[in-house]
Amino acid sequence: MASLFSKIIAGEIPAYKICEDEYFYAFLDIFPLRDGHVLIVPKVEVDKAFDLDDEFLGRWLRFARPIAHAIEKSFPCNRCGMAILGLEVPHAHMHLVPIDTSDDLNFTRDKLKRSPEELASAQSKIISHL
Amino acid sequence: MASLFSKIIAGEIPAYKICEDEYFYAFLDIFPLRDGHVLIVPKVEVDKAFDLDDEFLGRWLRFARPIAHAIEKSFPCNRCGMAILGLEVPHAHMHLVPIDTSDDLNFTRDKLKRSPEELASAQSKIISHL
Repeated sequence: MASLFSKIIAGEIPAYKICEDEYFYAFLDIFPLRDGHVLIVPKVEVDKAFDLDDEFLGRWLRFARPIAHAIEKSFPCNRCGMAILGLEVPHAHMHLVPIDTSDDLNFTRDKLKRSPEELASAQSKIISHL
Repeated sequence: MASLFSKIIAGEIPAYKICEDEYFYAFLDIFPLRDGHVLIVPKVEVDKAFDLDDEFLGRWLRFARPIAHAIEKSFPCNRCGMAILGLEVPHAHMHLVPIDTSDDLNFTRDKLKRSPEELASAQSKIISHL
């Protein structure tokens, strides 16, 4: 069965898409740690990030860079942080989160509750800075 | 003035080195979140990870992969997690940490206190699996 993320990539589940290329798909985390929290998912179903091949691993951070910079321009922060855990959805994914303190990248924290309008606004902001 | 990490790379400050190549230097975090916590630092002093150029960004995760797999073989865990924050040392660095729960990659937690012997043992284990 396709993963949740594969269904998003295929357009079967709606998402606040930021951008995509041949290898990756970026969209908003709808349960953000902070506004501007983006997920980047490879277009291949691999559970563990470090099991991806050279082609994907070599492109992932380069694909992330303009998104990270757009996040920094869209939401006041010290910088864009990054994390890969993968304990919940068995399809490797990278988190990009604007951070000011370590707690902004603490996945044990309660996530923010944002309305569709707020999420659409965050999406537009980031895309406008790409 | 050279950063703490540049001094480690230059051998001016001792470290529990794991491996290096032309672009990156990997060594144990001496204040680990979990045993096996490794830092990977680019051999260029850039504060923010996403300001690194294509050459470094394209190689970083590929350099990290065998280390992540060695960490997984050395310390029982669900997988090797990864994070980039950079709020404390102004020289970009990637954390590799064996994780079972999100709290294992929570940088607000108290760090472990490990003796030189315990750190040397963790270093040997990881190197033996490279």
